[in-house]
Amino acid sequence: MRVGILGTGMVGRTIAGKLAALGHDVAIGTRDVGALMARTEPDAMGNEPFAQWTQKRPQVKLGTFADAAAHGELVVNATNGAGSLAALRAAGEDNLDGKVLIDIANPLDFSRGMPPSLLVSNTDSLGEQIQREFPRAKVVKALNTMNAFVMADPSLVAGGDHAVFLSGNDEQAKAKVRELLGSFGWRHVVDLGDITTARGTEMYVALWVRLWGALGTPMFNIKVVQAQG
Amino acid sequence: MRVGILGTGMVGRTIAGKLAALGHDVAIGTRDVGALMARTEPDAMGNEPFAQWTQKRPQVKLGTFADAAAHGELVVNATNGAGSLAALRAAGEDNLDGKVLIDIANPLDFSRGMPPSLLVSNTDSLGEQIQREFPRAKVVKALNTMNAFVMADPSLVAGGDHAVFLSGNDEQAKAKVRELLGSFGWRHVVDLGDITTARGTEMYVALWVRLWGALGTPMFNIKVVQAQG
Repeated sequence: MRVGILGTGMVGRTIAGKLAALGHDVAIGTRDVGALMARTEPDAMGNEPFAQWTQKRPQVKLGTFADAAAHGELVVNATNGAGSLAALRAAGEDNLDGKVLIDIANPLDFSRGMPPSLLVSNTDSLGEQIQREFPRAKVVKALNTMNAFVMADPSLVAGGDHAVFLSGNDEQAKAKVRELLGSFGWRHVVDLGDITTARGTEMYVALWVRLWGALGTPMFNIKVVQAQG
Repeated sequence: MRVGILGTGMVGRTIAGKLAALGHDVAIGTRDVGALMARTEPDAMGNEPFAQWTQKRPQVKLGTFADAAAHGELVVNATNGAGSLAALRAAGEDNLDGKVLIDIANPLDFSRGMPPSLLVSNTDSLGEQIQREFPRAKVVKALNTMNAFVMADPSLVAGGDHAVFLSGNDEQAKAKVRELLGSFGWRHVVDLGDITTARGTEMYVALWVRLWGALGTPMFNIKVVQAQG
């Protein structure tokens, strides 16, 4: 499958690398290719410069947001939440038309310090904002509730015995994402309902960041357990 | 131990019944005892009238919010979140002075329909509001992330192999609550940190209500799993 990934941070890189390793034809997009490739220092999160990363993964194509979105039959929003709507506008509505758009971004607000708060929450969500602005895309919120390494390889935590959530209005799009997640090793995929349920997973991030602090590692996730019968 | 429970809804009743069964000396408080005892119909959630409930549990004393708070060495806020601050004011600051105050309430806003949103979130929480208004109480947010039956008997779900969270500024108060939770059967008690971490567990409720919808039962909880080493 041809997949376009928007965003070259840790999430975009990890998902792009995983999809390429699974044999998909992957293009990764950024706002300004020249600026990205000119960087020689690690980013604020300590990630190696993209130019180094891409050398090791020549099979992942690099282009603009529009290039990556045009390339993909399926598009992944792995940009930071504060910039997601701008990145998707740059990608172009026509390049998203009719496509499944997996939205991994969280609307994190670091302006008040750590841990982050959310730029939108409670009565709206980033997933809904994206679906409203791009009504012809089939937005599926997924994978926004764990660390990038766990997203791409759930077996890293407890043998993969934990949950990932789906929110979206289109059943076929969710079925396609469920299948893709299965190829990553996800066995517990919980469909929460329509895109408004993205409020639930985005707001859970407020607990996730505090669990990160309490546990001292981001390599964790939650499992949903229920009473029998 | 003498415990005062504020709130006679399902959470207050279930916690009061559990504590009484464990041998504690429990008083449960309400805004207007006469009005509560005069009700003959089930409440909006289908719970039996309190007068019926209390007949079966004569060992649980009934009084005003102030009576219950004065009775308790430890006080539990099991009122609905929208009314918690008013209930605690009625309980009286002096009746909370120096005491551990377990805050189970969630600031649910049903005015926009179902599922509820939150009256306070993201950059503040009900737990923090309570701690700010009652600085001499030792507020510990706990048990607000699951159904009342699961709160009082975690073994009802997956043999009790799932998590409950603590948020609070006072370490001794959290140790006392941890011990009490242990007596309920809780084995995985995760201390998230100070009372600001109540934002995390209160916002998780936005995911909880959607999981309830997706699973079709409120008898579930989450387990935190992490990578080894």
